[in-house]
Order: sequence, then C-alpha cells, then structure tokens
Amino acid sequence: METNMDVDYVISYRFANTDKSHAAAQFEKLVQALASVGLDTEVRKGDKHSVLLFVRVASEEHLFGEVYRSRVHDWIHGVRTAAPPKETREALEADPLYEAERLRIIYQLITHPTSEGGAGITPKEGEWENVESIFTLHDHAYNKDWIKKWSTSYFLKTEDLDDIRNRLGEKVAFYFAFTQAYFQFLIFPAAVGFGAWMFLGHFSPIYGIINAVWCTIFTEWWKHQETDLAVRWGVRGVSRMEIKRRDFKHEKQLTDPVTGEKVLIFPATKRLQRQVLQIPFALCAAAVLGALIATTFSIEVFISEIYNGPFKSALVFLPTGIATTAMPILSSILTNFATQLTKYENYETQGAYERSLTQKIFVLNFITSYLPIFLTAFVYVPFGRILVPYLDVFSLTVKPFAENEKQMKVPSRSTFSINPDRLRKQVIYFTVTAQIVNLGMELVVPYLKRQGFSKYKQIQSDRAAKREGTPPQAHAEDPAEDAAFLARVRQEAELDVYDVTADLREMVLQFGYLSLFSVVWPLTAVSFLINDWVELRADAIKICVEMQRPIPWRADTIGPWLDSLSFLTWLGSLTTSALVYLFSNDGLGPDGTPASISGWALLLTILFSEHAFILLRFGIQKAISKIDSPGRQKERRDRYLVRKQYFEESISRLNKAPRMVDAGEKLSRESLEEDARTSSLSGNLMNPEKRFWARQKGWRETAGVGRGLIERAEMDVSPERKKEL
Amino acid sequence: METNMDVDYVISYRFANTDKSHAAAQFEKLVQALASVGLDTEVRKGDKHSVLLFVRVASEEHLFGEVYRSRVHDWIHGVRTAAPPKETREALEADPLYEAERLRIIYQLITHPTSEGGAGITPKEGEWENVESIFTLHDHAYNKDWIKKWSTSYFLKTEDLDDIRNRLGEKVAFYFAFTQAYFQFLIFPAAVGFGAWMFLGHFSPIYGIINAVWCTIFTEWWKHQETDLAVRWGVRGVSRMEIKRRDFKHEKQLTDPVTGEKVLIFPATKRLQRQVLQIPFALCAAAVLGALIATTFSIEVFISEIYNGPFKSALVFLPTGIATTAMPILSSILTNFATQLTKYENYETQGAYERSLTQKIFVLNFITSYLPIFLTAFVYVPFGRILVPYLDVFSLTVKPFAENEKQMKVPSRSTFSINPDRLRKQVIYFTVTAQIVNLGMELVVPYLKRQGFSKYKQIQSDRAAKREGTPPQAHAEDPAEDAAFLARVRQEAELDVYDVTADLREMVLQFGYLSLFSVVWPLTAVSFLINDWVELRADAIKICVEMQRPIPWRADTIGPWLDSLSFLTWLGSLTTSALVYLFSNDGLGPDGTPASISGWALLLTILFSEHAFILLRFGIQKAISKIDSPGRQKERRDRYLVRKQYFEESISRLNKAPRMVDAGEKLSRESLEEDARTSSLSGNLMNPEKRFWARQKGWRETAGVGRGLIERAEMDVSPERKKEL
Repeated sequence: METNMDVDYVISYRFANTDKSHAAAQFEKLVQALASVGLDTEVRKGDKHSVLLFVRVASEEHLFGEVYRSRVHDWIHGVRTAAPPKETREALEADPLYEAERLRIIYQLITHPTSEGGAGITPKEGEWENVESIFTLHDHAYNKDWIKKWSTSYFLKTEDLDDIRNRLGEKVAFYFAFTQAYFQFLIFPAAVGFGAWMFLGHFSPIYGIINAVWCTIFTEWWKHQETDLAVRWGVRGVSRMEIKRRDFKHEKQLTDPVTGEKVLIFPATKRLQRQVLQIPFALCAAAVLGALIATTFSIEVFISEIYNGPFKSALVFLPTGIATTAMPILSSILTNFATQLTKYENYETQGAYERSLTQKIFVLNFITSYLPIFLTAFVYVPFGRILVPYLDVFSLTVKPFAENEKQMKVPSRSTFSINPDRLRKQVIYFTVTAQIVNLGMELVVPYLKRQGFSKYKQIQSDRAAKREGTPPQAHAEDPAEDAAFLARVRQEAELDVYDVTADLREMVLQFGYLSLFSVVWPLTAVSFLINDWVELRADAIKICVEMQRPIPWRADTIGPWLDSLSFLTWLGSLTTSALVYLFSNDGLGPDGTPASISGWALLLTILFSEHAFILLRFGIQKAISKIDSPGRQKERRDRYLVRKQYFEESISRLNKAPRMVDAGEKLSRESLEEDARTSSLSGNLMNPEKRFWARQKGWRETAGVGRGLIERAEMDVSPERKKEL
Repeated sequence: METNMDVDYVISYRFANTDKSHAAAQFEKLVQALASVGLDTEVRKGDKHSVLLFVRVASEEHLFGEVYRSRVHDWIHGVRTAAPPKETREALEADPLYEAERLRIIYQLITHPTSEGGAGITPKEGEWENVESIFTLHDHAYNKDWIKKWSTSYFLKTEDLDDIRNRLGEKVAFYFAFTQAYFQFLIFPAAVGFGAWMFLGHFSPIYGIINAVWCTIFTEWWKHQETDLAVRWGVRGVSRMEIKRRDFKHEKQLTDPVTGEKVLIFPATKRLQRQVLQIPFALCAAAVLGALIATTFSIEVFISEIYNGPFKSALVFLPTGIATTAMPILSSILTNFATQLTKYENYETQGAYERSLTQKIFVLNFITSYLPIFLTAFVYVPFGRILVPYLDVFSLTVKPFAENEKQMKVPSRSTFSINPDRLRKQVIYFTVTAQIVNLGMELVVPYLKRQGFSKYKQIQSDRAAKREGTPPQAHAEDPAEDAAFLARVRQEAELDVYDVTADLREMVLQFGYLSLFSVVWPLTAVSFLINDWVELRADAIKICVEMQRPIPWRADTIGPWLDSLSFLTWLGSLTTSALVYLFSNDGLGPDGTPASISGWALLLTILFSEHAFILLRFGIQKAISKIDSPGRQKERRDRYLVRKQYFEESISRLNKAPRMVDAGEKLSRESLEEDARTSSLSGNLMNPEKRFWARQKGWRETAGVGRGLIERAEMDVSPERKKEL
C-alpha cells in the first residue's frame, strides 16, 4: 500500500542562505560524489528552499561488494570469527543481509571519507553545509504491525527484539532490550515492595537488603545478558572498533617508520590537563544547581511550614514555579557547557567522546534528580531544628503578602517540629508524578510542536496565497502517482532525529530512584513497573510517528550508562543503610526525628553495608559469570570450528615427515660394521657428543640396554637385602 | 668446557618398588613412545635403582615441524598476530627459535597426550609411575656468567631479563622482572621513609599518604608493565590459552551436536557448592592459626610484662619457641588441606586450579604474616588495659619457675601500663629479622640438606663396601670421557624442583608489610631495598646451584598474585589511616595509649581514606592507561600490518566492478527514444517504483533537474521578498 519507491536514503538539500549558482554547483558535486560510489539518484522539490535527493544503490553487484568489504573489516577487527567466503553471493546466502545492515552500509557509503571508499558527505559541515540531513524512510506497514503487536502483549520476546534489531539496528535494539530486561526485573521488587508496604512498615531493613541485592543482581546480570545479545546479533566487539572523530584536531602528524601509517597525535598529557577541568566544572555545576535546589527547597519549607499569612496555598507553588522555570534553563546552559568542554578535550575517537560526555551529563542529571531528596533526608530531617531559625532570610519572598511580622516569625528550635511526611511525599513525587509528567511530555510536546508548526506554515502560505493570488499548492508539479509519497517524505524530512541515549538516560535515572531511595516508599517499583510497560510502547510510537527513522547504528552494549548503573547500585548500598539506620530505629516514634543517633553507629552501619555490598557484588559477579547461555555457546562453537579449520589448513601444509625415528630400522651385522668403519675412519675427529649418542642405535637398542641395567641393578641389591633380612 | 652432550631432557626412571620384568617392559614402552614422536634416546645407569634416559630431538626437521605446529596454535589462540609463514625454515629465519621455546616444545612433545601429538608421558602417574622426573640440564657456562654479571651490577637491565626469558622461560623471567621492578620502586619510599624517620616523628600522616599513593602507583604501573613485557616476549594472551587439567573428573560427556567436539561436563552449580566450603575453611584456618598466635602472643605479654620471677630472660623465648615449632606444622597441615580442597573443587583448567589454590594459600599466609601485628596494633594497644587482667590463665606456663605468687600477679587496670615499643619492635622483627632469616633459610637449608644427604649416601655405600668387599665406585662402568658428565647429571637428578610461586609469594607478602604497616616504622622500605638486592642474586644462585633447571613455562602475568597486590594496597589504605589516627594524635604522649579516641572519628577517618584511595586508584589507573610504551607500539604496529595485509588480500579477491554508476553514459536522442519505446511497450506493467527512478537518467540529469529546481525556487521567493522590503 505505502511503497517507499525502493529509496534507501533521502538527502535534504537546503539552499536558503546560499547564493543560487553556488548552491547549484554544490548540488552537482553532491550528485556526482554519490554516483561515484555507485549510488543512483533522483531529485524532487522539497519545501520552498530545499530539494530532496533520493538515493539508492545502483545495482546489487555494488551492494554485495560493499557488504563483503564491511564484513572483511569486521573479521579483521575480531567482530566476526571467520573471514567471509570469497564469493560474495555465497557469503550472502550463508549469512543473509538484514535491512539494518544494508541501510548502515549504504549510510557509511554516503558519509565515509573518500579515503575509506565513501562519498565523504558530512551533513551541515564544511563543503556540505547545505546538506541538511540524510535520513531513511519509515516502513509504515511494519511500524503499524509493530505497534499493534506490542500494545497487545504483556511481555516482549527475544524475537521481538530481533525484529527491532533487523529494522532499526543494534543500538536502538539494545535500548529496548535493556528496558524490557529492567521491566521484567521490576516484577520481583514490585511484589516485595508491595508486601513490605503492607506488612513491614516504614524503612524496613529487610526490604532494603532485598532491594539492594536485587539491584546488584540486575546490574550484573544485564552485563552478562548484554554479551549474550551482542553474540546473538553478531556485533560482539564492535565497540572496540574505534571510529575516528571528524572534529579531532591533531598537534603533530607522524609517519610511523615501521608501518608507514600516518598517525595524528594529540599529547595525552595535554588532554589530561584539559580533563582536569572536569573537576571545577562538576563543582561549579553542583554549586549552581545545588544553590538553586537548596534555595527553592528552603523557600518551600519556609512557606509551607513557617509562613502563616494569606495566599499560603498559592504561595506554596512559588518555589516549584521558580524551580521549573530556572532548572531547565540552567540545565541546558550546563549541558551546553559540558558539550563544549568535551569537545575541548579533543578526543580522537567517537567512543571516547561519547563516554566523556555521558559522564558529565550523568553528573548533571544526578544533581538535578537526586539532590532534593538528599537534602530532605540528610539535611532537613536530622538538622532541621538547627537550620530552620536561619530561614528568616526567605521572609523576603512573602513580605508583599504577609499582613504582619508574626505570620513570618521563624519558630525557635524547641517549637519547630519537622514535617515527617516530607521525605515520603518527595519520593512519591519523583517516582510517580514526575514519571507520568515526563512520559506525557515525551509524547504530547512533540505532537503539539508538530501541529503548531504545520498550522503556522498553513497560515503563512494562506497569507501568501491571498496576497499573490496563486493557489496554495506549493507542490502542484508533483506527478499524481508520486504525490502521496512525496508529501510523506516532505513530512518526514521535518521530523526530529531520534536520540536513543536520552531514553536510556531516563531509564538509568529511574533505576537510581529505586536503588537509592525506594526504602523510603517501597511501592516505587510498582509505580515503575506500570510506567515502564507504557514507556516501552510510547517509545515505539515516538520512533514511528514523531521521529525520523533512526540510522541503524551498531552497538554491543548500552555503553557508559553501564558504569552509571554500577555507581548507582553502589551508592544505593550507602543511602539505603543510612536511611534505614536514621529513620527506622524503633523507639524513635513516627516523627522521624532521630533523638539518639550516634555518629559512630551511623558510620559503622554505612561502612559495614558498603563492604557487605562489595563482597556480595563480587560473589554475584562470580556466580553469574558461570552461567552459560545460547549466545556464549554459539560463540564458543564458532570459535572452535574456525580454529579447527585454520589449524587443519595450516598443518596440512606441513610436509609430513615420518615421525617415528627408526621405523623399520634393523640392527644388522652390516650396519654395525659400517658404523665401526666410519667411526674408525673419522677417528678422533668425532666429538664427544657424537660418541655419546652413538652408543645405542635406535630405540630397540636403548630399550635392550635399559633392560640389562634394570636386571643387573636388581641383582646388585638382592644379596645385600638378603643379608639384611 | 662442560658440555651437555646435546641432551635436551633427562628422564629419571626408578624401579625400586616394581617387579623387574614389569619395569623393563614399561621401560621399553617408554623408549618406544619417545621414539614414536621423533626423539632420540640413550640410556645410562642412574643410582642403584634407577636408570637415566637421555632424550634429544632426532632431527632438526622434526623440531621445525613441532615449532610450526606450536606457532600455528599460538596464532589461532591470538598469541601471535599473524599466521607463521608456510615454509618452516623461512619462519625460523624471520623469528628465530630461542632456547626456552625449544625446550618447552620438546617438553610438551614428551608430556602432551598422544591425541595432541605428544608421547603422553606423565611423570609419577598411572602407567608412567616409574618415571620419577623429567628434567633438563643446567648450562653451567651460562649460569656462571649470569651470577657473575648480576653480583657485580646494581640494577638489572631489560636485556638481562630477556636473557632469563631466553634461557628459563617467561614464567621465571616474570618473577625476576617483578622483583626487579619492585626493587627499583622501593628506592623512593626508602628515601622518603628515611626522611620521615629523621624528621617527621612517629606515625606521620604525610609519610602514610605518600606511601599509600606510591604503593598504588606501583601496583597499577606493574599491571601496565606486565602487558608491555608480555608483548616484548611475544606471550601476550598465553594465560587465556587454557590448559586442561589432567585430574579433572567429568560427570557427563556430551558430543556437541554442531561442532562434533567432545565436551566433558562438571556442573558449575556443584562446583559452586564445593567452593562454598572455602568459607568454613578460611574461618577454621583463621580460628586455628589465630588461636595459636593469640595464645603465644598473650604468653609473651604475660612473661615479658607481668612475670617477674627467675629465668625471665630465658622464658621470654618460650612463646617464640612454641610458635616456631607449631606454626610450620599447622601451616603445612592447612596448606595440605587447601590443596585437597582445591582438588575437590575439580577445576577443568590448570589456570583455574592455580588461581583457586593461590587464593587459599594467600589467606593462610595473610593470617600467619600479619595477624600478630594486627593483634598488637588493634587489640593490645587500645584494649590492653581491659584485657590484661584476664591473662592470669597463662600463669600456668611459668608456674614451675616462679618462686611465689606475687611474681605472677596480674596487675590491676590502673597499674598496668602498655609497652609502647612493642608495636614498633614487632614490625622491625617482621621486616628485618624475619626477612634475613628467611633469606638464610632459602640458601642454607637446601645446602645443608644436600650435604647431609650425600654424606649419608657416602656412609651407606662405605658400609656396603666394607661388608661385601666390593669397591665403592658404583659407576665404575662409565666410560672415562662421559664420567664427569654422568656424575653431574646424577647429581642434578637429585636436586629439588624450583617453584617460582613460592618466591613470588614471598615478595608479595613483603610488599604487604610495606603497604600495611610501614607507617609504624618508616625504615621498612630501606630494609626491603637491601634485602631485595640480595634476594634477586640469591634466587639466581638458588636456581643455578640448588635446583634442577626449571622447565621453561610461558606466562604473561604474575597471575593471581596481582589480585593479592591490589588487595594489600586497598587494605593498606585502611590500616595506615587507622594507625595514624590511633597513634599520632598529638597530645597523647609517647606512651601510645589513646585517651580520647572516639569511635566516630576513627570510622570517619577510615571511611574517608578508603574512598580517597578508591578515587585515587581510579585516577592512577586512567593516567597509567594513557602511557604508551615500546611493547604497546610494537603490538599496534603488528596488528596494523596484519590487518592491512589481510584486508588487502581479501579485497583483492573482489572482482572490481566500475564503481561510477554511469561513467561514460551519454544522453543521446537515441537512448531517450529507446527508453520511451520500452516504457510504452511495457506500458502499465512497469511498477511505480520503476517509473519513479526512471524520471532522471544518470547523475548529470539529476544534477540538471536539481539546478532547475534551485533556480526556480529562488525566483519563487524573490517577488515576495521584494514586496516585503
């Protein structure tokens, strides 16, 4: 029904800000570059200032060549165990091309530098700044099936993930696999959490321990599972295949004297110096974001628990207002700064760049996501009585509304009592409300944006039509039979690019709430379980409807987020034990004010639980590493077969000399006489080594002499033994 | 001067406890088995109940075949980057055979099972229980040079280590490389320690921090260095080449349906259950050894600090006497038990077996080496006043000598004062006295043992001669020219087998004192520096004189001891901070009794220093991983060249189709008409995809149409813009 016209990629070429003749010349160059690597092209009108260039592989022959090249590359870098068969057609029969592989290879053909056999098209950069985007087209029939299937099933099977991998590539598939694994894993803590919520009371150490163990098992198990999936999808090791960053600036260029390879060098010490800037950056970010959070937090405490004047119910939302306005602005400034800093660190490979950027983004997100709860748990509750008197500075915020000073009077230490529900309410806010809002934002905002944008365009072109009297059909020249297709392509050209790391980050941060704070409110996992079922489907819809079809990149891991997971489980062992110790000590009463907290006991609890955690993790790692899996079996088998084949091939080249030293050799009178003659002839010229080895000839003689020695030795001993008896 | 008669290996065949005809038959089988894999043999008399079987490779042709086989095996398992050249002679020219490689390959030829192409000789086991040992002969000329060179130089160069590797194999070379690296590394803490001892006073936190940082740097740097050496010696990855354990008992045997490989299976869960026994074992060992150490320690405290009667100066040595008698017995029982347990765990590979055994041995050594100091530092000093009154149970030990009850009277808490020097004296004992004693034992004991043994034999044969009247020359039948050689071989046959892990363990335990306790006595590193200079030379002498020449095994790491090093540096961060906090607080006076120690401050110190350590280690790891080295460069170059070669080889097989889509294609009137004709002929049969792609023919037309679109778009806009202006 909805054909993609065999189009592999669409290149949107925009010339709004360029001189027309230059734009046309560049366009010609573009088309020529694509043709030079074996790609067919067709051009159509885009919107007012762009044309759409449709690209497909000119012939299967070309494609097979590229596939073979790519597979040889994989083999050399250890991703494939064996070299692909020499005949490409045979190779494709043994190991068929899947859609994502095909699309990836073509994308690389378009974007790789000419030195590596590509067309060297780099969107929005340098020579190709008019190339606005390179995207591939959605397969609407498949998308429809996909969403229908997922929205009617509780669990996703590995085959469903295989499907994603075949269509959208391993990187996206790894996100869905991770989220699905996490979703399944949530069932157990959700059940335990529900039980704990029903029967165990607040801050149950039992729930805390189970939760910490389970989070550790999940993290370690996922590492195991990841390898298995990577083997299943034939991508194990691709993350080691470093892709050079195009923006890398070298200081020196050396030619290796041995290999003749050109090496671009940027001194590691210099990079290290630049990396050190991360520390002040993290501190600054923590200070800025922390100050904002602490301020709004204090204002909120002041208004909700001290202020007693008019408009209280409205003013309570003031701090939230400040936070929701200022936080995204600050966050985006800091994220921008982090990106700049990472660029400045000048990494040589794409992988290193992404790792470094992810670390910084994680720090920022860590602060914005968890600091408010940390403040409540470890500052407000234990030190509230001490700190509250200093809150009168915030009376400024409500001064215009207060009727008298008394309404803003800060209570003395003795009269102020801490709001015991604040911590729980906050955790519930972050784990339920914020998650729902977030999910809504992900789906609704882009929809509204798109609607608004198309409305705006409609109005504009209506206005133009009125003014000029031309009909509003901008694309009247489209042939009737292509019109629907072209309209669809134009619409897809305007969509956003899907960023899988943003979705992954969301999941990791969600996992953080579970690991760090779920002991406060054990229903956390229940909320997440429901949320993630929807999330998985919502992300599928998002990809299908609101985003351009993602370029099918490969991956063999969820990457640096794995470190974040490990970090969060470790930190969870600290926070959970501290929370349990601070809040669950019986006899403290429900008001949560710890009367008899002793520093050494808290520290001992933390110290103990941290080391118990490290030991436990070590044990779990060991145990999980022992688990076999289909992927591992497959890998072992492949390796074994390849080794066997290579070994046999190599050994067969060896000209087989008879290994037996003297097979068939006989001691005859003649040979002995012959020996004696040579020996006497060469006389003293024969060296002692030769004489030593000449005494026994062939293994039979050695065996015979040995037999003699053994028998005589026996006789030597016998008389002695007899005497001794 | 001293020739080895071209002998590669000597097999000592002992038949004392075997029926003579059976022994002779087995001997024949042995000789035949050796001959069947291309080995030449000669037999000579050994001692009374043994014969010596000399083995050498029959021909260079045979050897080359084996070398090729071994190198192909290495290549397949990733130890070599490239397959060895097909012509073996060429391979040996490009990459000459070194002595250790030659000897290793011959040893494997003798011992490998017949299924893997060896003779299957397994000393002391099964069919071959008469084969007492297989050893190779010392190269006396080289040994003499070696010892002379080392004893006259301060530092060993990498070339010296290369020499060891060429002669004795990588495993022994790695021990010397590690000890040499450790020796060089000690110079800095020795200097700092000397300075601290002179100027900084006791328990200096500055020294503690420097020492902890330096220990961490050393551990991490060694990991880096190890890789480099492995690359230099061409053995990187050999530890991943798992050698199957001969004693492994399988429960099931499966034939892999895909590969046809026979897989022996022992369930991992069952092994895990057995491994769990390690926990009670470690606890028992700790309890038994701990009880012994605590008892002797208490007796010592009682006698030296409470007892006041006669023979005090002699009785003080009583506990040391108990310890030195009981400890080796207990240790050897426990070590034996650990070995049994490790065997019971039934590992499939030699590597896993050794790792597990090393872990257990490390636990035992950890207790015997460090527990006494732990007791003094963390029990005697802080809790001495509380515990001393309970020591009266030990009055039993001196009761026979005491003249009256008063001499054994335990003082009350207030009158007893702790001996502040005990901790320091103990550390000095372990880091100076014990090290010297140990070194002496290593050299002197085997010498005495050997002397005594040969004396004993001399006496015995003298007695026999007297009784029987035969001359005492047991080997009178030796030919005169071989006599000296044979005497030497008979002597070497009686030597012990060198165990490199024992020496390595000694070094690691020594490192432990530095990391854990050197803050008590900063001169520790000075003592170790001197000790290790001697140790390196003494070990060389030991190998040359007192041990059989080691079989040149390969290794690419010091193995599981690396984990022990990491563990000791980590623990060092805890003990150092605790010791500094407990003992250096100013105002406590020199008596070391901590009056105002508060639990929370101690715990906070430990918690802080541990996390500072973990962060520091992370930083050091990152920084060191950035360091390039000749070995890494070599590896990278080799890989690059091999990849390039393979890639080019593979790609050259591809039949080069012209990549340019329409090179030379021309739009002529004829071709257009031809297209029109085919199009109208096929009519509606042509599908929309074909029509879509048929609109523009060749890249030139696409470029032309694009140019038109761009120019027209420009015109569309222009009037509007003009109006707006």
